[in-house]
Amino acid sequence: MSLDAVLSRIDDQLPDALTRLQTLLRIPSISTDPAYAADCRAAADWLVADLQSIGIDAQRRDTPGHPMVVGHVPGDGPHLLFYGHYDVQPVDPLELWKTDPFDPQIEDTPKGRVIRARGSSDDKGQLMTFVEACRAWKEVNGTLPCAITFFFEGEEESGSPSLVPFMQENAHELRADLALICDTGMFQSKTPAIVTMLRGMVTEEVTIKGPDVDLHSGFFGGLAANPIHTLSRILAGLHDDIGGVTLPGFYDDIPELTPELRAQWEGLGFDHARFLGDVGLSTPAGEQDRTPLEMVWSRPTAEVNGIWGGYTGAGFKTVLPAEAHAKVSFRLVEGQDPDRIRDAFRAYVTTQLPDDVTAEFHAHGGSRAGIMQTSAPAFEAARRALSNEWPEEAAYVGCGGSIPIAGHFGAVLGMNAMLIGFGKDDDAIHSPNEKYDMESFHKGTRSWARILDALSASSA
Amino acid sequence: MSLDAVLSRIDDQLPDALTRLQTLLRIPSISTDPAYAADCRAAADWLVADLQSIGIDAQRRDTPGHPMVVGHVPGDGPHLLFYGHYDVQPVDPLELWKTDPFDPQIEDTPKGRVIRARGSSDDKGQLMTFVEACRAWKEVNGTLPCAITFFFEGEEESGSPSLVPFMQENAHELRADLALICDTGMFQSKTPAIVTMLRGMVTEEVTIKGPDVDLHSGFFGGLAANPIHTLSRILAGLHDDIGGVTLPGFYDDIPELTPELRAQWEGLGFDHARFLGDVGLSTPAGEQDRTPLEMVWSRPTAEVNGIWGGYTGAGFKTVLPAEAHAKVSFRLVEGQDPDRIRDAFRAYVTTQLPDDVTAEFHAHGGSRAGIMQTSAPAFEAARRALSNEWPEEAAYVGCGGSIPIAGHFGAVLGMNAMLIGFGKDDDAIHSPNEKYDMESFHKGTRSWARILDALSASSA
Repeated sequence: MSLDAVLSRIDDQLPDALTRLQTLLRIPSISTDPAYAADCRAAADWLVADLQSIGIDAQRRDTPGHPMVVGHVPGDGPHLLFYGHYDVQPVDPLELWKTDPFDPQIEDTPKGRVIRARGSSDDKGQLMTFVEACRAWKEVNGTLPCAITFFFEGEEESGSPSLVPFMQENAHELRADLALICDTGMFQSKTPAIVTMLRGMVTEEVTIKGPDVDLHSGFFGGLAANPIHTLSRILAGLHDDIGGVTLPGFYDDIPELTPELRAQWEGLGFDHARFLGDVGLSTPAGEQDRTPLEMVWSRPTAEVNGIWGGYTGAGFKTVLPAEAHAKVSFRLVEGQDPDRIRDAFRAYVTTQLPDDVTAEFHAHGGSRAGIMQTSAPAFEAARRALSNEWPEEAAYVGCGGSIPIAGHFGAVLGMNAMLIGFGKDDDAIHSPNEKYDMESFHKGTRSWARILDALSASSA
Repeated sequence: MSLDAVLSRIDDQLPDALTRLQTLLRIPSISTDPAYAADCRAAADWLVADLQSIGIDAQRRDTPGHPMVVGHVPGDGPHLLFYGHYDVQPVDPLELWKTDPFDPQIEDTPKGRVIRARGSSDDKGQLMTFVEACRAWKEVNGTLPCAITFFFEGEEESGSPSLVPFMQENAHELRADLALICDTGMFQSKTPAIVTMLRGMVTEEVTIKGPDVDLHSGFFGGLAANPIHTLSRILAGLHDDIGGVTLPGFYDDIPELTPELRAQWEGLGFDHARFLGDVGLSTPAGEQDRTPLEMVWSRPTAEVNGIWGGYTGAGFKTVLPAEAHAKVSFRLVEGQDPDRIRDAFRAYVTTQLPDDVTAEFHAHGGSRAGIMQTSAPAFEAARRALSNEWPEEAAYVGCGGSIPIAGHFGAVLGMNAMLIGFGKDDDAIHSPNEKYDMESFHKGTRSWARILDALSASSA
């Protein structure tokens, strides 16, 4: 059977695959910093050449930002689109890295062998698992099992400004039966997982203004309005005593978990004590009448992500500041409309303002929650394929984060998306000393071979 | 009568006095920046030479920081000590200055002629009013009217680290019957004023700690404790709904105003609408059952002077921060002990901490309120002398700020202090485009001549 031959080929070719990944990891394709624009283009060019080396008709497609890479393989059966991103996060603080972030090292650690470099897990290593699976398949069978479009982005870590316009302009070319996205992780670092639920998000910056200028707290203290006080009251009032969000209408239209999903999640055996213990915490701090998995997957949040105002340097300055600021985000779930939540927040803030104090708002972005249609047969086929590769049965899981790309495939191209990835909780993505487990890279590649085999035989 | 001759002399010599002040203002004696240490020494040397030119036995007295200037004039009658400071605030943001801060300009403005330069009002111009009064007195009478010690500091704008040790080491030399301090202003910019009540202060920095590291608000949001939320609740809880401070025991032992003082303050006709209106405010924001003057002079406060945590740069980062910070100060009044207030704040914060959240405290300083003993005959003598110089009757006033030097004279040297100054509310001390009114300089000098005349005739 050809799948076994492909899996053997993947095993045999692992050292070469690793060499290719290391070559890609050496390119410092930091998308948010204009100084690295040429490196982003170089990474795109490297991917184009690598896809072409497998016989894929691939091209660099320039945009107003960093280029896309698009490749096509015709074929019978379902038409799949695979998405990954070749850009990486900045590396600062550089002094916390034990090795050069762009000189990938293979290290043996107590938890196994790892590839350490910026982008190894997010997302170059994950992206290459799919490419390497296709390469092995092609080498063994002379062709790929179905029509596949490769679609790599270079702006995922900098807000994807070119993504939706590019999708819109090239919709006829990109539209496929199903999008595969490899940018997520395994559940509790060991259970292969298909993400079926993503939270949406509203991000908002608020500036509270008091006096025209910073005042001396000796001459004005006790008489003049202090905008930090107002901001503190506003933020403190966002949550009630049991962790619920107080905005009027915030929980309207949010569905409860189905009994089936609730039972499935209970079966996952989420170890919240360990999850929190790994970061020095012990107690679920959210809605006290919800389970820990609900808190992070299926319940919305209000979080203050940044706050500043007045004197924040060394020593002390007795200033009454003219302004105070906060960055506030809301993770949204099914049923919540980003515009409505933003309006509710702004209305709440406005009602809390005392005399002489005003508020200004700056919207940073908003996206709805993403709910995957797992009833499509491809989902169960992929789940069985994953389960065959790994010691544990694959699970449908939620993800508390917001991955807007999944929603864009639905909204712009009318496609369902399936998120499968092999990252581990300790990969340190976005942090110093990022790594990707060799197991993730090797078994991830094998997983895609199994999934391609399963999906090409099903109707995605 | 000799006083009239002295006043005439002051009038005649005003152009020369102004030239001397401009020379002193050209020296950039910024005490907080080590780059200006030589300039601080140069300012001290200039003052020594200027005092010597009047026949005063003056010397630069080096300290571990910037030098003191001490000069002595023997004499009969009361022994007075005059204090001022020759160091100035930094000038940044330099781009907001209309002229070079160290190239003093004489300008005619709609409100009258001014001397514009850093330090013109705080405190070189004020300091020189006393020196010029002594110079004129000496020139007219050949001697000064009583024993006077001149004591100039060069670290007032950088926390006065050498002041108390110097006072302790030279207590026998510095002790006098009364300290005169010229570093305050006129009430509502027009009423000559003797400050008889200064607020004390406790400054405290608190760090609220949650997780060991910054977390991703997608993966942890809704489950993990957010220290910004805890900090917001703590700060919001510091005040009740009518502006009172909630710390247990905060208002214990605070005396009410005497009926006499309350009547006197009512007679001052404080125009709080104008005072607040000048900075874009309209409503007294403090304790709603107190008058505006009580809010800033005789009632204690809790103010957040700085707050920071999480991501505060451009754009948005969905971080749950490991820490959040605030700088909090309490202005204290008679009866409040700084240590007790600090302890009460720390105890309150500690009771507000949820599971997994801790607090660390850093004390920045503390000083008691200062209450001057106005029953000493010198106060009424000085008040009458001031009233003779200005169109308005001089007033005893409070000051919401904290001027620790007054307390040091009491605590270290056992001396009463009298604070008289001629600054205006719009002098922009500590800000760009600082100025000192020519009226303040001229009539301030004349005021000191009158006060010297009055005090030398009384028993200070």
